Amino acid sequence: MQTLNVDLADRSYPIFIGTDLFRAEHLTPYIKGNQVLIVSNETVAPLYLDPLKSALPSVQVDEVILPDGEQYKTLGQLSAVYDRLLECRHNRTTTLIALGGGVVGDMTGFAAACYQRGVNFIQIPTTLLSQVDSSVGGKTGVNHPLGKNMIGAFHQPQVVLASVDVLATLPDRELSAGLAEVIKYGLVYDKPFLDWLEENMSGLVGRDTALLSHAIYRSCELKAEVVAQDEKESGVRALLNLGHTFGHAIESCQGYGNWLHGEAVAAGTVMAADLSARLGWISTADVQRVVRIMQAANLPVEAPQGMTADEFMTLMAVDKKVIDGQLRLVLLQELGHAVVTDQFDPQLLQQTLTHFTA
Amino acid sequence: MQTLNVDLADRSYPIFIGTDLFRAEHLTPYIKGNQVLIVSNETVAPLYLDPLKSALPSVQVDEVILPDGEQYKTLGQLSAVYDRLLECRHNRTTTLIALGGGVVGDMTGFAAACYQRGVNFIQIPTTLLSQVDSSVGGKTGVNHPLGKNMIGAFHQPQVVLASVDVLATLPDRELSAGLAEVIKYGLVYDKPFLDWLEENMSGLVGRDTALLSHAIYRSCELKAEVVAQDEKESGVRALLNLGHTFGHAIESCQGYGNWLHGEAVAAGTVMAADLSARLGWISTADVQRVVRIMQAANLPVEAPQGMTADEFMTLMAVDKKVIDGQLRLVLLQELGHAVVTDQFDPQLLQQTLTHFTA
Repeated sequence: MQTLNVDLADRSYPIFIGTDLFRAEHLTPYIKGNQVLIVSNETVAPLYLDPLKSALPSVQVDEVILPDGEQYKTLGQLSAVYDRLLECRHNRTTTLIALGGGVVGDMTGFAAACYQRGVNFIQIPTTLLSQVDSSVGGKTGVNHPLGKNMIGAFHQPQVVLASVDVLATLPDRELSAGLAEVIKYGLVYDKPFLDWLEENMSGLVGRDTALLSHAIYRSCELKAEVVAQDEKESGVRALLNLGHTFGHAIESCQGYGNWLHGEAVAAGTVMAADLSARLGWISTADVQRVVRIMQAANLPVEAPQGMTADEFMTLMAVDKKVIDGQLRLVLLQELGHAVVTDQFDPQLLQQTLTHFTA
Repeated sequence: MQTLNVDLADRSYPIFIGTDLFRAEHLTPYIKGNQVLIVSNETVAPLYLDPLKSALPSVQVDEVILPDGEQYKTLGQLSAVYDRLLECRHNRTTTLIALGGGVVGDMTGFAAACYQRGVNFIQIPTTLLSQVDSSVGGKTGVNHPLGKNMIGAFHQPQVVLASVDVLATLPDRELSAGLAEVIKYGLVYDKPFLDWLEENMSGLVGRDTALLSHAIYRSCELKAEVVAQDEKESGVRALLNLGHTFGHAIESCQGYGNWLHGEAVAAGTVMAADLSARLGWISTADVQRVVRIMQAANLPVEAPQGMTADEFMTLMAVDKKVIDGQLRLVLLQELGHAVVTDQFDPQLLQQTLTHFTA
């Protein structure tokens, strides 16, 4: 087992990464009161709820099982968590445990942020995506029909258990979606890590435990460095959104849940690379490298069939990266180095959108 | 006009108290972007929306008008605010303005806390209660059918305009409800202020502008001192909840909106005083003083007809002041000095409940 400390002053917390993590010693020190609510979903609960419960100390344990899918990441479903907390009389010292992927993690974290104006929570991410993404950063929230993650809060967990064991039951598509975010870390911050990923992609797709552990550790480490510098996303943290503005437009247009978040980010990252090449920042050979590594991870590299350039423009205009009407994008200055910018010729963006929607 | 600074490091803000406050100079410096959403209700908007709009700088101004009443302080109504923000494409630099009483202020503040994980907001409280209570402290949130203010966040405004002018249109019952909170400040922290209130209660009930201004200023000043010491309510701030545990039970039992919050707090404060006397901390003459000043402010001093001791116990058990199953109450050590305690004989609490529900 490896331990990574996310350094955020009085909100610092550890991430445990490895196998055989569902043990009392990894949970008990992080439960302050005598009440726990486990939030999980219909897919994950049958597999991992019992192992988790048997690792908990003897406190009041309640549970709420949500439907599985991004389309259920709503204020309405969030109400179900509050209903359960209040029916079971959970007080301010309660601890919420998120057992599931990004949707469960984001909703549980947001429920914890707002229940009685803030209670503790523990994250047990069960997808590769959530292990490398929502494990670090404290972003929580729900979607709105007009935009993804539009309602939320920053709220840090007490501890994160990133178990490589649970990835054994993860569907192939979900594994690939997680790899999209891992590749993103390499593209944005770390060329040597990108090289390592290119070399080891077949082993990662084949779920080699040691390779996955390293990929998770390095991804979380990179994200933790960035979040420590910029907890509330005013600066460098925004780079983590490479591919996300295009990707959110894809998810929003397709209806949440049809394209996986990581799939949308993969296609969006290729689009961001394309625009970066049109700006003359990276070469077309670099764009091809981005395309090839995404393909090696079994990820889409094109926009959804039938989606138009106008739909992209409309949906990108509601993205959180719009400041005073000006669209800002994360683009690649070189492989391993991204920048946030609103300094691009809108015609080049139009060319990228036309290229991917023709 | 008087200015009170609420000192909270980088979240500090001014409260302007006085007449003729709807002026650009009090608003423009606190609006950072070029978008504003005014949140108001059906009662207040017809009176004060136009004067407010004419004082705003030339930015995009949208509005959402909610139904009036505590029963509408729900997650469902909160959705209407998010819908409007997204329909009108408000971005992260938007400013929400709460124009209304405590319900509007709490909901607007909570919407601002969670919209895109936090945007700015301005409070224009239009009731005496909200001017002396929710103006200071940053508590925001909504109710749940099983408990009041159970879902919320701490989020500080950029500025508060506490206009004495707008109290001219306030119904008598609402004025009295505000005075209940003013009296509470005297009882909890400041005996000389309590004496001043006893002397001037008829002038306050008669809406004397100078007396009301002083009462608002001193109340906000006392609350600001406490909040500056204890922003997240781990210690001294809890004393502000004198009468609130009993009061919340009353509100919850009657259905939100039937008893005004201040009315429930008034009766709850008398109950807390009664229990304090049973504990031998204050005299029965002190209890009578509490009863008399509440009566002078035209406030209820008894529990609602028909409410039972069992109902009180059940509803008080879900109060946020319960820690690990132990009920904590704010009680009076003497007039002008309150304490939070779980050290009381449960039989004496039972006697108080029996006395008020017989």
